[in-house]
Formats: sequence, C-alpha cells, structure tokens
Amino acid sequence: MPLLPLVLLSGIAIGELPETSSPPSAAPAVAPAYAEDGSLLRPEGFEEWVFVGASLGLSYSPHKAEYGDEFFHNVYLDRRAYEHYVRKGEFPEKSMLAMSVYKQASKAEGPAKLQGSFEGEFVSLEVAVKDSERFEEGWAYFDFSGGETQKRTAKPFAREKCYNCHAEHASEDNVFVQFYPVLRRLKADAPNESE
Amino acid sequence: MPLLPLVLLSGIAIGELPETSSPPSAAPAVAPAYAEDGSLLRPEGFEEWVFVGASLGLSYSPHKAEYGDEFFHNVYLDRRAYEHYVRKGEFPEKSMLAMSVYKQASKAEGPAKLQGSFEGEFVSLEVAVKDSERFEEGWAYFDFSGGETQKRTAKPFAREKCYNCHAEHASEDNVFVQFYPVLRRLKADAPNESE
Repeated sequence: MPLLPLVLLSGIAIGELPETSSPPSAAPAVAPAYAEDGSLLRPEGFEEWVFVGASLGLSYSPHKAEYGDEFFHNVYLDRRAYEHYVRKGEFPEKSMLAMSVYKQASKAEGPAKLQGSFEGEFVSLEVAVKDSERFEEGWAYFDFSGGETQKRTAKPFAREKCYNCHAEHASEDNVFVQFYPVLRRLKADAPNESE
Repeated sequence: MPLLPLVLLSGIAIGELPETSSPPSAAPAVAPAYAEDGSLLRPEGFEEWVFVGASLGLSYSPHKAEYGDEFFHNVYLDRRAYEHYVRKGEFPEKSMLAMSVYKQASKAEGPAKLQGSFEGEFVSLEVAVKDSERFEEGWAYFDFSGGETQKRTAKPFAREKCYNCHAEHASEDNVFVQFYPVLRRLKADAPNESE
C-alpha cells in the first residue's frame, strides 16, 4: 500500500476510533434515522448493539399470561449511547434501545426431557428513541411488527400507549434500568452515582 | 500530534482493523488467554460481545426446577468469532462463548402487580472455548463462579461434566445453535447452508 493513502486513511481511523465503538465491518446504526413523514426507519444491525438484559413476560398489564405462553424480551442499547452511559451514567440524546421479542419455546429431545425454555419464533422488534428535538416528551416508542413481514418504518405510539407507563414505572429517564442487569451494574459502579 | 507517531500508530490500526471487530476503547478479549498453569483467564469485556440468545432454566438434568426457581442464561459469542460465523457459518478456532447466569427475579411494584420475571442477582460466568491446539476434544468448558467473588481463572471441566452433553445434544459443533435465535437466523441466511 502506498504511504500517502495510508497516512490519510489512518488520520481518519485514529481520529474516530476513540469516539466510536462499532467496528467498520458491522456499521450498525448509531443514531435514529427518519423517513420524510417522520416515521422511524428500522435500525439495522441492532443485534450487534450492546445487550443489557433479558426477561420473560414482563408487563404491567392486568392480564396474567400462563407459563409457556409468555414472550422473551431481549433489550439492546446502541453502542454510542452505551459508551456514553459507561462514562456518564446517563442516556444521551439520540439514544436508541431495541427490544427483540420471541415466543417462549421448549421441547423434549431424545430420551431425556429438556428442562426449561428458550427463545423460539421471532415476534417483533420494538424501539425506544430519545430525541427531544423531535418528540415533546423526549422519548418516543415504535413497533416494527406487522403482518407476516417486519415493517421498514414505524410511526411513534401515542403518549398513553407507551410513554406514560415508562414515565411512571421506569427507574431512570424512562428506561427500565431496574430490570437490566448490565445497566444496573454500570450504575452501581459509576463514580458519580447519586443514589 | 506529530506526524511520525501518527504514521506508525496508523499502520498498526489499519493493519488490524479488518481482522478485529472490537474497538480499542472497549478492548474486549478476542482470543482465549491462559495462565501458566493452563487455567483460562476470565475474559474481560464479554458483555460487549455479540449476544446470541437468552433462556430460562435450560438443562438436560433430570431435576425439574420450580417456576420462579430457575436461572436466566445470556449467551454471547466473541466478536471475532461472530464475524467469522456471519461469513462462513462456522465457529473458528479460538472461538469463545460466554454465558452469564442470573437468578430469576420478580416483584410487585406500586398498586399494579408487575407480571413476568427478569434477571436478578448475578450468579456465575461460564465460558466455552474452541482451541484444538490445547484441548484434545476441541472444546473446553470453564466456570468462573466460586465463593463470594468471581474467580479470575478457571480450570477446564472434566470431559464428562460438560463436553459429553454438548457433543450429544448441541446442534452444531458442540454449540447449542438450536437455542440461540441470532445464530439460527444467520445459519438460515447463510448462502452455503447445507442443512
């Protein structure tokens, strides 16, 4: 490789590396992107974000699902917001949380019964975005499920559908940090922890 | 910054970027590291690897845990191995899978009962390593739990403790791909899929 391009390229690489934690090859989304009508574009590469916690059947709804009929939830924080959270203990503007939802699955295998349950069929992708320039309440919520195919764009839910419950029950800035062990631990380790 | 160090540094950065997918700022482990006695060093930064699936109470043991008394398992694949899996659909030598184990937790909050369960107290970190140079069977298994503190090193389990069950029940190369939705989907999408 000739020296000049190497020097030029390297200037970029060195300048950017400390700021971004996503590898060039994966290039997951690092900020919310919107369609012209204001819909959120489905964030590509969210499965390469930082996983912060899983749960089963979590809900504040009065309906009690039967065991075996609940959904697994996997929650991810976009890598830029995660690194900010590591440093500052707070969610920066343009933070994105993604939640992949799966049916609970279990089955017997061979002569020995398999105990427990795992994540079966994919159900939906739900996304929370913190974008105060665009949303009056700061956070907005989106569901990319729909029909047989997943939607490419989604409109924000009305305030009473998601925001109000997050605002009432989530332990920190509308985020259910209390249920996400990775964030709980970061919070506990943060030097400026105020709790 | 003077030009010379920048050139030197950048040569390293450019040379390594296509091979590693972990950012310098996070610097998670990209290959297994061993102590002089052959113990595996606890892989730092595993929570920034790629999460591939969660489960609750999965076991081939005949003991049936009661609901509410099971463990959540979160499984991660190191980023270098993940990127190889994306391209080739197989686990390269030096692959590492990490499993964080949490007690199942649930509680009532406020006037409305919270439904479902989430990941409570951290229990253990277990790690699988593919290293045919070092382990006759290819894969070896390690548990970093112990006493009140997590261990910094762990010796491989005897073959009958882990390897045999993985070899018998795991769907692919000793890995329970059948339980990890992210890997299942990559497998289904792989152009050279042979199943």
